[in-house]
Parts: sequence; C-alpha cells; structure tokens
Amino acid sequence: MKRILVLGAGLSASTMIKYFLDHSEENDWFVEVGDINENIAKGKTSGHPRSSTFAFDINNKEALTGKVNVADVVISFLPARFHPVVAEMCVEQKTHMVTASYVSKEMKALDQAAKDAGIAMLNELGVDPGIDHMSAMRVVDNIRENGGVLEGFYSSTGGLVAPESDTNPWNYKFTWNPRNVVLAGQGIATFIRNGKYKYIPYTKLFDRLMYTSVPGVGDFEIYPNRDSLKYRETYDLKDIPTMYRGTMRRPGFCEAWNVFVQLGMTDDTVNVENADKMTWREFTNMFLRYDPVAPVEEKLVNYLGLDPDGEVMKKLTWLGIFEEKPLGCDCATPAQILQKLLEEKWEFEAQDKDMIVMQHRFIYSLEGKKKEITSSMVVIGNDHTHTAMSITVGTPVAIATKLLLNGTINVTGVHVPVNKEIYEPILNELEPLGIKFTEEEKDFIE
Amino acid sequence: MKRILVLGAGLSASTMIKYFLDHSEENDWFVEVGDINENIAKGKTSGHPRSSTFAFDINNKEALTGKVNVADVVISFLPARFHPVVAEMCVEQKTHMVTASYVSKEMKALDQAAKDAGIAMLNELGVDPGIDHMSAMRVVDNIRENGGVLEGFYSSTGGLVAPESDTNPWNYKFTWNPRNVVLAGQGIATFIRNGKYKYIPYTKLFDRLMYTSVPGVGDFEIYPNRDSLKYRETYDLKDIPTMYRGTMRRPGFCEAWNVFVQLGMTDDTVNVENADKMTWREFTNMFLRYDPVAPVEEKLVNYLGLDPDGEVMKKLTWLGIFEEKPLGCDCATPAQILQKLLEEKWEFEAQDKDMIVMQHRFIYSLEGKKKEITSSMVVIGNDHTHTAMSITVGTPVAIATKLLLNGTINVTGVHVPVNKEIYEPILNELEPLGIKFTEEEKDFIE
Repeated sequence: MKRILVLGAGLSASTMIKYFLDHSEENDWFVEVGDINENIAKGKTSGHPRSSTFAFDINNKEALTGKVNVADVVISFLPARFHPVVAEMCVEQKTHMVTASYVSKEMKALDQAAKDAGIAMLNELGVDPGIDHMSAMRVVDNIRENGGVLEGFYSSTGGLVAPESDTNPWNYKFTWNPRNVVLAGQGIATFIRNGKYKYIPYTKLFDRLMYTSVPGVGDFEIYPNRDSLKYRETYDLKDIPTMYRGTMRRPGFCEAWNVFVQLGMTDDTVNVENADKMTWREFTNMFLRYDPVAPVEEKLVNYLGLDPDGEVMKKLTWLGIFEEKPLGCDCATPAQILQKLLEEKWEFEAQDKDMIVMQHRFIYSLEGKKKEITSSMVVIGNDHTHTAMSITVGTPVAIATKLLLNGTINVTGVHVPVNKEIYEPILNELEPLGIKFTEEEKDFIE
Repeated sequence: MKRILVLGAGLSASTMIKYFLDHSEENDWFVEVGDINENIAKGKTSGHPRSSTFAFDINNKEALTGKVNVADVVISFLPARFHPVVAEMCVEQKTHMVTASYVSKEMKALDQAAKDAGIAMLNELGVDPGIDHMSAMRVVDNIRENGGVLEGFYSSTGGLVAPESDTNPWNYKFTWNPRNVVLAGQGIATFIRNGKYKYIPYTKLFDRLMYTSVPGVGDFEIYPNRDSLKYRETYDLKDIPTMYRGTMRRPGFCEAWNVFVQLGMTDDTVNVENADKMTWREFTNMFLRYDPVAPVEEKLVNYLGLDPDGEVMKKLTWLGIFEEKPLGCDCATPAQILQKLLEEKWEFEAQDKDMIVMQHRFIYSLEGKKKEITSSMVVIGNDHTHTAMSITVGTPVAIATKLLLNGTINVTGVHVPVNKEIYEPILNELEPLGIKFTEEEKDFIE
C-alpha cells in the first residue's frame, strides 16, 4: 500500500482528494488529509475507508515528521510560504513532494538535496502555473521537432463565470480570491513583441488590451500579466522575439475596471478616514475634484471622459457606487472597501458554475512560411465543490502524484512540468477527463 | 564655554556651521564637527580656532559617547535612520539634541526619558518641516487670539531654481536630491476641502493642480503632498474643514512631468533589460504601443493626447528622450535611467542660484465675515555652498541651538516648533536675516 499525505484541504484541493479516493482501491492507496481545521478535511474525505484525517499544525514539527515519515508522497496545498518547511522535512525523510505552486527560491535551493535523497519535488502542477506550461511545451516541442522556428508565443488564462451563470453587466463573478482580483496588475507589466520590449504601468494596463475569441464560448479581451519576460527562460525560448502572457476577461470589463484604477479606488496603502460614517456616493466623490455643485455622476463623467449613457456608467451604476447607502465598514483601505462592495455584487452564488479558459497562440516559421497555431481549453465547473478551478488545479496534481507513485514519472530533484517525460503522460491522462486543448493551425498573416 | 557637537557636515549643514563659527566668539562656543569623511567637516570649518573636526563612525559607540559626554548640545544632520542612536546617547549623557528631521516613532518614544534627563530634543527645525510649522503657527495663533475661527489652511513649498538662473524650458533644476524628485508622489495623496476628503492616486496627481502667484517671483502651480490630513493633529486643528499641503513648481512643469508618470518612466520596481544596448528613443518607445511603422513622437502624441507642437512636446524633445543616443547606463529601473538623463539636463550649475518659496493661505471667519491671509516667503541662495536650501534648513536649527544654550528656549522632552515659546524667538531672529514672510490680508471671496 502507498500512503499519500495531503496537507491543506481548502477549496482547490477538493477535486484532487476526490480523485485520490476514487482511485484508491485500484492503486492500493491510503490517503491521509490534514488541515488546520480537521472538519474541512473530514468534509473532503467523507469517512472513506481508505482515508483518515487529522488537525494539522505547521508548528508541530514532531507530529509532521511522523506523518511525512510514513508517507510515500506529500502533497502540499498549504499557503505557499509553508512549502519550504514541508520540503525540508521531505528531504530529511526521503519522501516525494508535489505542489501546484510556483517554485520559490527556497524550494529551488533544495534541488541537489532532493537529488541526493533520491526524491522528486514536482511543482507548478496546477492550472496556471501548471496546465499552461505543459500544454505550451507540447506544442513548442512539436514545432521544434518538425524543424520549425518559434517566433512568437502569446498565452492567456481567465478564471471566469460559466456562460450559463453569466448574469450581470460585468460578465464577471468572484470564482477565486477576491483580494487578488482587486489588486491585480499593480506594479508594471513587461513583455516583448517582435524584439521590442514593452513596459506598461498600472495606470495604462487596462487600456492596453488584446482581443480574442475561443470556439464555443465567445469573445474575450486580454490585459498583460506582470512579468512575461521570465517565461523565455522557463520554456527555454531565450531568443524568442515575442513573449506575452495575459489575463482574460469578457469584453468591456477592463474599460470599466480602469475607472477604479484611475480614481485610486484600488489603492491598498492608506486607510480611509471616517469610512464608518461614509456612504458609497461620498466614497466615490472622495476621488473626484472638489465641486460643491455638480452631481457625483457628472463629475466622474467629465473627469474620466466617459459617455454618460454608455456601458461603463451602466456597469458602475449597477454596482451601486453612486448610492446614498452606508459603506458599512470600518476604517480600511480603498481596495478593501471596494472589495466589500464587489463581493456582494459579484457573488458566485450556490447555483453558479465557473469556467477556466486558456488560450495559446504560437507563431512560427517552417520552410520559409509563417504559420500560426491557436490552442484553446475551456473547462466548466460541475458545482460549487468541484469548480473548474478545483478541477484544473487538482487533477494534474493528482495525476502527477499517481504517475510518480507508479514509476511512470521517474525523476529526482526539483522540477516544473516543462520536460516531455513529465508533461506528456500527465496531458495524456488529462484529455479523457475533458481537460484538453483544441488546436487550429493556419497561415500567419502579419 | 559651551560645546556644540555637529554630526554630519553635508551640503545642508554648511550655513548652520558657518553661523556657529561666526557667532562663536560672542557666545563663547566651541564647535566640534564630525563627518564620515573628515575632509568634508574640515572644508566647513576651515581651521577656525574655535572648531575641531573628526572622522565620525556611527558604529563606534565608545568614541561617540565620549564626544556627546563633553558636549552641551548635539546637532544631528545624519541620515534620519541614525537619529535614534544619537538620541539614546543624548538621554544617557543628559545632553540636548537638535535636528531638522521629522520626529520618528523611535524619537517620540524618548519623550519621557528626555524629560527625566532634563534635556530638550528639538526636531523639525529646518525649512519643511521647520519654517512651515513656525510661520503657520504664528498666524494660526494670532487668528485664534483675535477671536477668529480658522476654516481653511493651504500651505505649499517649492525648492526651485532662482529666476536669474532659470534657463531651461522646464523652469527646473536639481537643487536637491534628484531621486526624491523623480519618485515624488508615488502612493496616494490625501487632503480635506470644505469637509470633503480627497484621495488622489499617483496617476492623477500631476493633473489635479492649484495655482498661485508670489509677489516678486511670479506664478506657480501646486500639486498635493502625500498626507495633508496628519497636519490637523500637528497644528491642533482637528476640526478644520480644509487642510491642504502641496509642492510648488513653475507653470507647465506638472503637465510635462505627468507624461513620465503616464508612460511608467518613474517606475522604480523593475529593471530594464538590455538597458546597456538601448538608445533614448528605444527607451521611450518601450512605454508606447507596439507599432512598427509610426515614429515614436507620433505614437506618444496619440497615446497621451498631446499637442504635437505644444509646450509639453517641446519640453520632452529638449530633454532628448527621442534621440538615437545610447542610455549609457547598466541595467537599472526606469526611474534610475530617467534620473540619469535629468541630472545631465537639469544640472544645477556652478554659477546657478537656487530658491525656496513657501506660501500659506489661511481662510478664517471673524465677526461674521470671511477673511483670507496669504503669507509668503522667498529665499534666494548666495552661491553653491550657501544655497537657499542650506540657509533655510540650517539657520533655524542654528538659532534654536543658540536659544537653547542661552536659556531662552527652556523646555524638556521631545518637541516640534509649534508652541509660541519655541517658534516666536526663532522667527524673531530669522527675520533680520531675510528669512521672513510677507502677509496680505483681504476679504475672502468664495
């Protein structure tokens, strides 16, 4: 019997734990799940005979050592800052480890120690990072093997609401961490296009969009992610003239979101004084020019050059930012106040389904001709437990774990899934589960 | 004989040290000056018989203790992070201390200890903070004493080039720390106007201006400082409906500077890849939309809605941001690269003089009528050593030190100069030296 130790049983671990339990008989697995709140772990295992749960405390090193010692593999779904603690213990106890998280410096530093211990530490095995790496590298390697030269790679992902649950004018609901959505893009975004570096500050980010459509689910706009340049190294494409990564939203979202950015409503650095006595209308007015006569709507329209009857003002009005209703929250930052409103209006409701969309575009030359491959994936969630996010994060982790335990993946050291021997068997198992890409190839028109 | 110990002999200490030496005979002072580079200290004392110098090392506690022990007062012109080290030693050795810096938490925490030791720790005694507090509080206290009720307080300061040396289209030269100028305003600015809070993000800061003119030196524009709200507490004006603090620039500066902000050229968080191989034109293009055909100037004009023949484009062209000249610097942040260019173009040259301008506006009601007082100060530097900055920072510190040593200022504990017993004698001595305010009073027209 092989023992799988899962640390952290939050929302994104649901589908993974289910996979382990559903396949525990045929593979002779025992699944032990620890969470800071044991009831959450219990909710995920539902008393399955091949499972047990425990209350997990990262500070109790002795208890953790005992658990890691008897396990054949440890899956850490803990907050990323705890991974190094678990990783060091895995090296000590010579136990494999799998995560869905970015490889941190601390994790990277354990590469040689993991090799010496003869164990694998597989990371970035969720959706983004994870499926993005694997699906991209499969196409990249194919193009190279056929003698093509890659000239451009665009890749975008969106965590969105499924079309059937898309019921508000923003075409958006919080299917994932609201705070990350509110703060997204602060800093500067960098990418390279036809050999030209492009640096975009936050103030212009939601105005510098690309557009695409995905078969079956329609149109999207894309804003650039923070650091596209580093992916040239990740994918061993150091000299590629175009490398762009972005985030997908439904058309019109970014233009309206940009209003919050321009106003300063996404600022997370200062507290709003008297927030407990303020209405939404007063909060909005706080970011506008002083003018004791003009209505807030008129000031906003003039300030940012909006169409008073346009879609942006409709989206803003629908949210309630002009209403004489109390904020109903204590002193906090503008971003925290805005998040509170959005959580109410963009609620991912019990009957709603979410959707993960991912699309890559590869431009390459082969025998003097320029070609373009578009590769798209759409995953719709089943329900509120097995969301598209939980399915796409948890399934590749679960499959990688299985392949590690049965010896199909046979590596040691710290890895991300960019090598064929890792991504190929995982992608092959993901496809029959509906986590698959549809490719279109055509001549590239400049 | 009283011993004055000066720690740090940089540019801003020049006028202060001269004051001490010039008045050392009549007051029977001995002035000891320490700097990390003893030659700098020597350059400032020029072998004056009532002075000595030494190489100062903040880490050599023993040597410092010896110096503080024999001093009657310590003036710290060190970088602000070192003040607490000196302050603790002053408490220990029961020696007065004076600085031109903001009171830090660490400094504030020493209040009771300073009182117990029977010593004064006077801070914020430069120009801003310093002269701003003193000159404002004199007017505020006058208004209150006459039964007026203060309704609004606007205060602005500019460190600028003197009119006679104002020779470039930006009407600006670096008379002070260039890095602070390039990074100025990042974050969010807050103030209150007629009871309405106003929060302005960096992206709108240089577009939300006020305008004024100062007798004798002409017109200025003003952009808001980071945190005006805290001054309600500093000045004991907790319920004042309007409190605004700003920075003065010559008209047209902010509109052109805003181009750098909108482009992202003031970002200090990412390094520019390949900066060593890049020209200024390529650097500028990096922040613009990808377009292989349109010239950089055209892209910029269209991107930010500029007039192609207007003053902003003239200012930018004069700087050289469209030139095919190498950046000539290593990998660095956009802000560091921009600073390098500006340091060359905005150089404060040997024959140049600088200027400090400060203006307060007080709006108050008295016997049912609204009145307005405008109070303005202009100081022009003498030369490159005794700059307006050095004069206005160093002179009030020197005078406060004198008044502390001769017992005119007789306080213990940690102070800033907002109390009459401190500001009144200092302002009275500053006036004959030309550091004085001109007041105008009139009826306030809403």
